[in-house]
Amino acid sequence: MKQDKNKIIISASLTGGATNRSHCQYIPYTPVELGEEAKRAVDAGASIVHIHAREDNGVPSWRTEVFEEISKEVRKRCPHVIINFSTGAIGLSVAERTNHLKATQPEMAAFNMGSMNYAIYSKRRKEFLWKAVFENSFDTMAAIVGVMNDNGVCPEMECFDTGHIRNAEPLRDMGLIPDNACYSLVMGVLGGIPATAENLIHQSKQVPENAFWQSIVISKAQWKLTAQSIILGGNIRVGLEDNFYLPNGEMAKSNGELIAEAASLARTIGREPATITETREWLNISRVSNS
Amino acid sequence: MKQDKNKIIISASLTGGATNRSHCQYIPYTPVELGEEAKRAVDAGASIVHIHAREDNGVPSWRTEVFEEISKEVRKRCPHVIINFSTGAIGLSVAERTNHLKATQPEMAAFNMGSMNYAIYSKRRKEFLWKAVFENSFDTMAAIVGVMNDNGVCPEMECFDTGHIRNAEPLRDMGLIPDNACYSLVMGVLGGIPATAENLIHQSKQVPENAFWQSIVISKAQWKLTAQSIILGGNIRVGLEDNFYLPNGEMAKSNGELIAEAASLARTIGREPATITETREWLNISRVSNS
Amino acid sequence: MKQDKNKIIISASLTGGATNRSHCQYIPYTPVELGEEAKRAVDAGASIVHIHAREDNGVPSWRTEVFEEISKEVRKRCPHVIINFSTGAIGLSVAERTNHLKATQPEMAAFNMGSMNYAIYSKRRKEFLWKAVFENSFDTMAAIVGVMNDNGVCPEMECFDTGHIRNAEPLRDMGLIPDNACYSLVMGVLGGIPATAENLIHQSKQVPENAFWQSIVISKAQWKLTAQSIILGGNIRVGLEDNFYLPNGEMAKSNGELIAEAASLARTIGREPATITETREWLNISRVSNS
Amino acid sequence: MKQDKNKIIISASLTGGATNRSHCQYIPYTPVELGEEAKRAVDAGASIVHIHAREDNGVPSWRTEVFEEISKEVRKRCPHVIINFSTGAIGLSVAERTNHLKATQPEMAAFNMGSMNYAIYSKRRKEFLWKAVFENSFDTMAAIVGVMNDNGVCPEMECFDTGHIRNAEPLRDMGLIPDNACYSLVMGVLGGIPATAENLIHQSKQVPENAFWQSIVISKAQWKLTAQSIILGGNIRVGLEDNFYLPNGEMAKSNGELIAEAASLARTIGREPATITETREWLNISRVSNS
Repeated sequence: MKQDKNKIIISASLTGGATNRSHCQYIPYTPVELGEEAKRAVDAGASIVHIHAREDNGVPSWRTEVFEEISKEVRKRCPHVIINFSTGAIGLSVAERTNHLKATQPEMAAFNMGSMNYAIYSKRRKEFLWKAVFENSFDTMAAIVGVMNDNGVCPEMECFDTGHIRNAEPLRDMGLIPDNACYSLVMGVLGGIPATAENLIHQSKQVPENAFWQSIVISKAQWKLTAQSIILGGNIRVGLEDNFYLPNGEMAKSNGELIAEAASLARTIGREPATITETREWLNISRVSNS
Repeated sequence: MKQDKNKIIISASLTGGATNRSHCQYIPYTPVELGEEAKRAVDAGASIVHIHAREDNGVPSWRTEVFEEISKEVRKRCPHVIINFSTGAIGLSVAERTNHLKATQPEMAAFNMGSMNYAIYSKRRKEFLWKAVFENSFDTMAAIVGVMNDNGVCPEMECFDTGHIRNAEPLRDMGLIPDNACYSLVMGVLGGIPATAENLIHQSKQVPENAFWQSIVISKAQWKLTAQSIILGGNIRVGLEDNFYLPNGEMAKSNGELIAEAASLARTIGREPATITETREWLNISRVSNS
Repeated sequence: MKQDKNKIIISASLTGGATNRSHCQYIPYTPVELGEEAKRAVDAGASIVHIHAREDNGVPSWRTEVFEEISKEVRKRCPHVIINFSTGAIGLSVAERTNHLKATQPEMAAFNMGSMNYAIYSKRRKEFLWKAVFENSFDTMAAIVGVMNDNGVCPEMECFDTGHIRNAEPLRDMGLIPDNACYSLVMGVLGGIPATAENLIHQSKQVPENAFWQSIVISKAQWKLTAQSIILGGNIRVGLEDNFYLPNGEMAKSNGELIAEAASLARTIGREPATITETREWLNISRVSNS
Repeated sequence: MKQDKNKIIISASLTGGATNRSHCQYIPYTPVELGEEAKRAVDAGASIVHIHAREDNGVPSWRTEVFEEISKEVRKRCPHVIINFSTGAIGLSVAERTNHLKATQPEMAAFNMGSMNYAIYSKRRKEFLWKAVFENSFDTMAAIVGVMNDNGVCPEMECFDTGHIRNAEPLRDMGLIPDNACYSLVMGVLGGIPATAENLIHQSKQVPENAFWQSIVISKAQWKLTAQSIILGGNIRVGLEDNFYLPNGEMAKSNGELIAEAASLARTIGREPATITETREWLNISRVSNS
């Protein structure tokens, strides 16, 4: 069903895998903390929560038990929110990246759309702080989306560059991409497309007509490009995974604060946050995930 | 030195690694054939020849002896042309990808700017005909360009997507990219940016001001996007590696025919093919490679 | 009917009103000369001839007798070509600008889409060589297109700037614009949008989907922007009214030479000139004008 | 001096000529009311006030006495604000459009950059509610800017379409345009360029590098395009002349409310309103206008 463009779907990226409380003390780690943060995000206007799992000490986790616990705690506090789990990992097998989908059958999951370098560079130190090859071969992609299809999980296709958007085409042609699959235009990862307004506009034009898309902006450019996405009629993702800071430069004390700011920005530009019911209707997701 | 934009630098991609004489009988294999084809290309307006090596039976080769022989045969017939050797290979070590640069010290060599999927898909058969991960990690890139720098080889930076263009930035910041490095905007490989005029315009805007860039267009879109590149003030690469067909749909009988057609197109749009002397001056390449 | 975009409609602007034989000795003046030039243009690939009338001494003329004579001489040599007469004049009444349409009922006529300054400036002399206000108020426009509608004349809407393209909307809403009306994107008149490739791309995006459009490029930028139009899937107008020079810098000796060059350019980029029959079919023009 | 792009210059268009209190009861009419509204706008973040004069009953006025009175009342409350008077009128002579500049010597004045149709169309009634030719020939422009130059008034060049931006070139070449002249990209007048984000981006690219520009958006699209302008690094104009409504759909009760909303939007996207001192420094306007 076609989205009413006077409304905007807001996703909350509650916690990531690359940062921890030494960077921002408000990052949720445990299932209970994630449940609480999901509640704050939903109260502020989010209808989708995107979640990476962590062990209680904050270390990234792929244990299905943790995802199950997260599902339970989120669902307890947000009975209808759309839960979106990550599947992106470097150096893990397809099974390790998807076992939790079988166990929890979330409404949605991130689906990485191509191989790329993935790095962080420090201009001050003139060296890479981190660098890797993020492998997502067509074989890997076919296997991951296959698990999603088998479990009724809507793919949120994370596109880090222009070619990634097109990579959906052969998979769609092979019948692997469901009609309600969404495009995420990830901006600002070194190795992928840089986070500029021009680049976001360019990416948005690559998305097939009438497909859902949202921007995911890593770094300080987030607020500027979030505004650009709102203007373009796209949807947006905001949260402590992507950026800690409010527009005024202060660190956000919760995901709720970031979502509230994004909702206010959307309203100023002329779009109202969609309700969970509306988002479910447009994305054709009626099922409520296990918990 | 700044290029006179009333002139255009034409590169000839004489032979590739992915095709053979069952696809097009005019593809040169041996050093002598490559020398002859280089001559035809130069006579028609090319000032750079980009070359992959093959064994005499057409199979791709990375033996330094073959590259040495090619250098000799090309140089015999084209004393001043800029020789550009490939370094792109899937599954080979950095040493295997660069030994020939040490042995022959060509004026220029292709430098692949990031990791990506690299595939061919058949809509008719609804399956991939070929698929691989083309690994060019930042470590690989630093090692390859290091060999180029040690041997006075100008890097021709092959950018298959928008992020690849930006990948030059950290390397430049670390002092690894010489001032005369050129950008190649490769269009149309599945896994990279699709071959559309809008995408070429977008890519051209990502290139730093005053840097040299050329389009490399795989597939039938070549003539259309070559025209777009001429309009934009970019340079062009044409040759049997990238496309076999003349605009009228007939298979070209030599690289010379393709270069002649490109030169004529450039003149109609208002730009004259640069001489080898002009190209060398603008790219600041005075050295003539070993032979 | 939808145009086959592998084909391109070429219009020939045989003679203008602003230039004369002191500028280019090959400009046709008389009806017989125009007939001969129409023939050369059609033989070279044009399917539409755009014509301003002149007295035999070359002075612009709006006498209906002259237009009748032109119709006769063109039709004698080109039984099926689409005849397109100008209606653009500064300082004349609507009646004076349209009487010839009533008399000759050409298949098509130029329709100027807004008021603007229209000037020529000399940088060398640091002064305007010519300047005027080209008045085309909404009242004037409604009156002119009314005459066209009454006489079965297809409007070729000349848009000198972005707002002119939109000016069609209220007129269409009022029922004054027939479905087969075409957009001409006029580039390079001082007072209107400058002749750059970026501007032509921009203008082409303003045209309603599936509407016919062509570029009209005044000045030396003609060949470059004609190539851009071919790439974009637009149609093209070329002729001695717009530009005297062939791509090689020589003055064209006839409209036929210019059309032949444009047809060759279109073929190289991948599009074949449409026949008159095809053009008539796509534009839904079956009627053959009086003669 | 170059603007710090982390800051944004906000102009307040306090009152127009085309609307009155039957449309919005908060529109200021008298010099005292304009002075009060200027104060509210400045307090909320504006550093420039753009003003049309009215008689006390709201009717547009070009009497110099009224402009003098406005200057006095604004200056009384805002000792340093930059005052910008209109010169745009249909059917008045150059003298009538500029006498007030000689009398009051404001720091800045609007300068209309070309002729065009200027209309309002009702889709519901299927007729024009108002239509005219807004004549600004090159002669008129040269005469108006001449008065500005003689009186030390900085031209704010109002560009209603792409060609208008280029119209500055011959005038600049003739020495008529001072270095600190600013570009206003007026969006959304029927006859000029439509108010879309793509069009604003296009217009912003036409402005010479390092020149100051702001968006002026007529109609409901104001908030969306104001956000676009903030993203692009442009400046913005907001006020009761251009739009009555706050983003939430309520009518603003003062210019101050509109400016406060715009300032908040700018901050969210990452730019702080410039102080009057900063604006004066960047625009190189040290003089304080008569009062």
